Amino acid sequence: MFVEATGHLIDSGLLSRALDCVTHAGARYRIVSFDIGEDADEPSRLRMEVTATDSAALDTILENLGTLGFSTPDEVDASFSEAPCDGVAPGDFYSTTNLPTRVRMNGTWINVSQQRMDAMIVVSDGAARCVKLRDLAAGQAVVVGQDGIRVTPDTKKREVHDFAFMSTEISSERRVEHQAKLLAALWQDTKREGGRVIVVAGPVVVHAGQNDSFAALIDAGFIDGLLAGNALAVHDVEAVLYGTSLGVSLETGEPVLHGHMHHMRAINAVRAAGGLAAAVDKGLLTTGVMHALVANKVPFCLAGSIRDDGPLPDTEMDLVVAQERYAELLVDASLVIVLGTMLHGIGVGNMLPASVPLVCVDIQPTVATKLADRGSSHNIPIVTDVGLFLLLLRQEMCP
Amino acid sequence: MFVEATGHLIDSGLLSRALDCVTHAGARYRIVSFDIGEDADEPSRLRMEVTATDSAALDTILENLGTLGFSTPDEVDASFSEAPCDGVAPGDFYSTTNLPTRVRMNGTWINVSQQRMDAMIVVSDGAARCVKLRDLAAGQAVVVGQDGIRVTPDTKKREVHDFAFMSTEISSERRVEHQAKLLAALWQDTKREGGRVIVVAGPVVVHAGQNDSFAALIDAGFIDGLLAGNALAVHDVEAVLYGTSLGVSLETGEPVLHGHMHHMRAINAVRAAGGLAAAVDKGLLTTGVMHALVANKVPFCLAGSIRDDGPLPDTEMDLVVAQERYAELLVDASLVIVLGTMLHGIGVGNMLPASVPLVCVDIQPTVATKLADRGSSHNIPIVTDVGLFLLLLRQEMCP
Amino acid sequence: MFVEATGHLIDSGLLSRALDCVTHAGARYRIVSFDIGEDADEPSRLRMEVTATDSAALDTILENLGTLGFSTPDEVDASFSEAPCDGVAPGDFYSTTNLPTRVRMNGTWINVSQQRMDAMIVVSDGAARCVKLRDLAAGQAVVVGQDGIRVTPDTKKREVHDFAFMSTEISSERRVEHQAKLLAALWQDTKREGGRVIVVAGPVVVHAGQNDSFAALIDAGFIDGLLAGNALAVHDVEAVLYGTSLGVSLETGEPVLHGHMHHMRAINAVRAAGGLAAAVDKGLLTTGVMHALVANKVPFCLAGSIRDDGPLPDTEMDLVVAQERYAELLVDASLVIVLGTMLHGIGVGNMLPASVPLVCVDIQPTVATKLADRGSSHNIPIVTDVGLFLLLLRQEMCP
Amino acid sequence: MFVEATGHLIDSGLLSRALDCVTHAGARYRIVSFDIGEDADEPSRLRMEVTATDSAALDTILENLGTLGFSTPDEVDASFSEAPCDGVAPGDFYSTTNLPTRVRMNGTWINVSQQRMDAMIVVSDGAARCVKLRDLAAGQAVVVGQDGIRVTPDTKKREVHDFAFMSTEISSERRVEHQAKLLAALWQDTKREGGRVIVVAGPVVVHAGQNDSFAALIDAGFIDGLLAGNALAVHDVEAVLYGTSLGVSLETGEPVLHGHMHHMRAINAVRAAGGLAAAVDKGLLTTGVMHALVANKVPFCLAGSIRDDGPLPDTEMDLVVAQERYAELLVDASLVIVLGTMLHGIGVGNMLPASVPLVCVDIQPTVATKLADRGSSHNIPIVTDVGLFLLLLRQEMCP
Repeated sequence: MFVEATGHLIDSGLLSRALDCVTHAGARYRIVSFDIGEDADEPSRLRMEVTATDSAALDTILENLGTLGFSTPDEVDASFSEAPCDGVAPGDFYSTTNLPTRVRMNGTWINVSQQRMDAMIVVSDGAARCVKLRDLAAGQAVVVGQDGIRVTPDTKKREVHDFAFMSTEISSERRVEHQAKLLAALWQDTKREGGRVIVVAGPVVVHAGQNDSFAALIDAGFIDGLLAGNALAVHDVEAVLYGTSLGVSLETGEPVLHGHMHHMRAINAVRAAGGLAAAVDKGLLTTGVMHALVANKVPFCLAGSIRDDGPLPDTEMDLVVAQERYAELLVDASLVIVLGTMLHGIGVGNMLPASVPLVCVDIQPTVATKLADRGSSHNIPIVTDVGLFLLLLRQEMCP
Repeated sequence: MFVEATGHLIDSGLLSRALDCVTHAGARYRIVSFDIGEDADEPSRLRMEVTATDSAALDTILENLGTLGFSTPDEVDASFSEAPCDGVAPGDFYSTTNLPTRVRMNGTWINVSQQRMDAMIVVSDGAARCVKLRDLAAGQAVVVGQDGIRVTPDTKKREVHDFAFMSTEISSERRVEHQAKLLAALWQDTKREGGRVIVVAGPVVVHAGQNDSFAALIDAGFIDGLLAGNALAVHDVEAVLYGTSLGVSLETGEPVLHGHMHHMRAINAVRAAGGLAAAVDKGLLTTGVMHALVANKVPFCLAGSIRDDGPLPDTEMDLVVAQERYAELLVDASLVIVLGTMLHGIGVGNMLPASVPLVCVDIQPTVATKLADRGSSHNIPIVTDVGLFLLLLRQEMCP
Repeated sequence: MFVEATGHLIDSGLLSRALDCVTHAGARYRIVSFDIGEDADEPSRLRMEVTATDSAALDTILENLGTLGFSTPDEVDASFSEAPCDGVAPGDFYSTTNLPTRVRMNGTWINVSQQRMDAMIVVSDGAARCVKLRDLAAGQAVVVGQDGIRVTPDTKKREVHDFAFMSTEISSERRVEHQAKLLAALWQDTKREGGRVIVVAGPVVVHAGQNDSFAALIDAGFIDGLLAGNALAVHDVEAVLYGTSLGVSLETGEPVLHGHMHHMRAINAVRAAGGLAAAVDKGLLTTGVMHALVANKVPFCLAGSIRDDGPLPDTEMDLVVAQERYAELLVDASLVIVLGTMLHGIGVGNMLPASVPLVCVDIQPTVATKLADRGSSHNIPIVTDVGLFLLLLRQEMCP
Repeated sequence: MFVEATGHLIDSGLLSRALDCVTHAGARYRIVSFDIGEDADEPSRLRMEVTATDSAALDTILENLGTLGFSTPDEVDASFSEAPCDGVAPGDFYSTTNLPTRVRMNGTWINVSQQRMDAMIVVSDGAARCVKLRDLAAGQAVVVGQDGIRVTPDTKKREVHDFAFMSTEISSERRVEHQAKLLAALWQDTKREGGRVIVVAGPVVVHAGQNDSFAALIDAGFIDGLLAGNALAVHDVEAVLYGTSLGVSLETGEPVLHGHMHHMRAINAVRAAGGLAAAVDKGLLTTGVMHALVANKVPFCLAGSIRDDGPLPDTEMDLVVAQERYAELLVDASLVIVLGTMLHGIGVGNMLPASVPLVCVDIQPTVATKLADRGSSHNIPIVTDVGLFLLLLRQEMCP
């Protein structure tokens, strides 16, 4: 069986992974031809023969090589089966990655739209799109097996002085001050070019006393959408109404007497007002993150969780709906920045195509690692104190 | 103003906190009488006079002393206001702790039932109970202010060789082997005495290859309920059907080719079967954690989250419903054990009265700290590898 | 047996620990009298009777109560034995804590000088002092047993708005910006009052690109001594000579080609010059931390370790000598600040009396915890990014 | 300028790094020929032309390609300069890596012996060897510049089911039970084949109550040398004499009254005996790690540090001597296992050639990462509880 691939095969590590893939399966390869790009800009072209002892092994290998961008010259169309009922896929369905994917129908390669991880590919009217398992309708044509599928791996060439490249090693022992400047520049450039920047944030933004820094960035137009949980909004309101976060004074750093009631009273006040927008309209909220979002008409979604108190009327406790809303806000995102939240960060990572840069700021190296491990060079982990980092960003971007 | 308290005031640190509370507020105290328990079994009795410059400060102090179990001799009844509408409390509502609480009505102290954190106290027909904010009905009588409320602080006397006491210092540099033996003994004793043991678990149980150890504990009757998320069940099914967890072989520890599709196919298989119970009935699931729960009729609840794939038909994506279900399963729990999940662990911690022992096993000291920080001496953090700990528990309890 | 104690017994938790101590040993106590301080400024006075089944148990209890500041009314002098040979103590020697200690000789209580942990008390010419085990000379009179020893526990009254009190909970989710301001104020006050401030620092100061911030603080006269290892100095010189730290450019954050040789060449350059002071004199070093120290005549000690390259001629590889030098520089320290080094931080902690405030800044909560766990309320752990924290300190203190 | 290389260029990522190296420097490459190994066993052979704008840049590139195993066809001999004085190298000295290195003299490639990181290459009598900076003698011929030096990169082919490969992703969410079995097998195989296994251990081994497990492995002949600090030995002796580690009972997990004196008394007892071997001879030590080492005549070195109490007479406080002793014990090591100590682990890593497998067991992912980051595929990080892991190893290896 002959397979071929074209691209920045060496630089991206694809060639190495492809050869691994063959030898791991106990099969053998023979390089038939390898035209390496003569310089850094030119793609390479490889043709090799793979031989395995049985055809099942060979099929497995071909499937795997397919996800690395290899294809067989004797291409066939993708196969389809009908979804047996709503929300259920045929047993051998193809599960997507977050990488650009095409399927072959009637001899033609068709781009798959709405690319995301862990979805099915549904074809209708000559078009292909990603559909989440629960959204499948009975009878829809779902791609099965591995034939006729081409995934374009992440073959981004790494560039000198590139922000992402710089940060590949995850460590807190880096010049974070410099990373803040680079991110500020990337962020400002993205906005200048009309891009959408979505921020995903945990309550540490408020606990660290930086909700005013965050609000300043919103006021300055740097944020096109916020994805968060109930807690960020609750403690932001608590900070505005009582000057505390989880009962700890943001002024003195000391627990305030009776402070443990503040967040519940904050929730109650917003519930009484009829929601965050109403609380802004009625003059209850005059500063803070949620005020800035409402005042600047920046869309947001607060997704519920099992640990939520209240919740706020704005918090979406139906997680199916919350996932839809998150996904909507992430459409066409140019840059996504995750500040101190593994839960919402992973949720967002699942929905994003690999090509969207995802910057993850967290004090815990393990969180940054987990978020950044998406098979993509577009993830940028920054291990630092989220509050101080946000302070630096504000100094840099809203001087 | 004179205040009084009775109990293990010194041993529990209450006296120290009470004096702090007065001096922090800028007020002064004078000890009128202090009858210290003559030996370790006898409670102490304190009477002191508190003087503050203004009555507002005095009120604040009295409120705070109230949460520490102090009361004024000249007691008054609790005050009530009507909930202005469904799901909204009167502005100055009292927000509960997880400690036993009483309210004074018509000169009589009434116990508050269904004690939990961050709830309101609703009174009707001479009885008082905790009600979550969102469950309040318009017109219900809600306790407001701080008068006529008595909280019984956690005055458990510490005992020699006590498991909880032993573990007060959170460290991984402890003899975890010994802690496993102590927990096994506590667990077995609890079951022998007819207690309910609820386990809260994250997917690390499966990733670490210990779902069989966990299933063995269920089969042996040690678990009365499981609270978890979608991921634990998904990866348990993946492990049963494919021998992998998140695509990594549990046999070899290596990523399996195409393994990234396994968890989606596991979800699909359960969806096709019509749920976990049906998957067991139809012979799809014959081993593993979820099989053991179904086979032994142990109730469970899988609470959804923003990062869930699928989800399984059994996963409750409406978090309001999931919180209710969690709370139901926790009723009358005698022992709660959290294995490697901060999210669900905090959710459970919010619902539990302080008197229920909560054992938190996590490899991250910060998680164990956060979970154990509930103002209670009944929390036992254990910093270790969750998988190996579960293996030891099984060796100890199911030899 | 009757015992007595006087002090802030409640507030400091001493009373609670004393009663624990009795019940733990299986003995019983009876409170004979307890005069609690009527207000916050007055000390309390307690007299209790302890009864145990055997006199050995009673002795143990009395020893323990002694470390908590309790004494028996029927006091006896301390006992002494001769050190059998150089560097060896009599078998039942008393090992010191870091708390103020007195010994009773001829009916008089004598203060022990040079207080530090894990030392022996040597008496000569009517004076008592701490002597390290290895410094004992044969024949010296060493305090043995527990009689006639009084330790003054840490009964510092906690004060409102106190920096130390504020930080007792160790968490990265705090307003670190505020903590930086408080530390800056404490530091400036300490210097204004003529105090000595000693900084203990790891190489993260340089890796994070903040050696110029650190040098600015030295130039401004805020630092009276630096305790560090070989690495801090090596990378500081590397940064000055090559603009890199461990081969990573401080300008771009990227590894520099051949950068892995830089630190060795930096070491070689200093060796060739004849040491750091000579390197400054000869104009090799014109900026950076080590230059600032030399130029401002601030004393420093670089203590060697098993992982050191080189080392620099200034690095003391004889750890006995290094410990002496560290201890000398810590004499009369008013404030000690540890920046990102557990190794040297613990070394310093062992040498310091409990009364000297020790501020520990580290991104790892476990390190801050370990350093702060010295049985003293004078430790202030701050969990944050060391580089950004130093940047804030400089902005605050050298505007 | 033409350069050539031969080896497993693709699989090892060398080709990709070489091309990076050229483009990073702003230069261009043209692939002249690339004979890729036709199957997995055959090496590849590459020839490319590199063009840069100036000869300085070209020199830099050639130097860098040299460290990746590339050489210029028009080879020249290495250059030498004399060390100007003892312990000082000529300014442009070549600083070694931990990879196999050769130098060209009189047209012949000579292997460099005693390979280690951060050393100089000294040539005499036609032989070349690594010499540490401080060991250089005035007048010795030291290799300078980058000409005539060939480094053989780590081109180990990864193999299926390989232990090292399995563990490349650092995570605690792995089947550690399986990793323990693999390590046990590797360890037993190594001993069966006559290899030397050196263990580097921190005091956590004792704190976790596993010093008996460790002693059992020594008694069974699995350990050929121990590298540690003062603390491991001190707490091992403390455990043997008092049943505590840092004053915490290994039986009950509780702090023992007066336990804080135990470690000093343990040190004193060994000092009085005249050292660890004498303490064994005199019957003071009859069990534990240090007893096992002495009884089985297994060599060990305890390296001092700034935080050491005592120290024991066996602890080497002169770190220059300690480094020599460590290095001696590591000669011809076949397998090195680091248990819970970053300090000594890094020290050892600096001394080892890259080809020796280094297994690092630590509960902190950051420690395992740091230790494993030696530019070698022979490092195996395992993130788990060190105590429980040692218990499993013992169950597996000494059943």
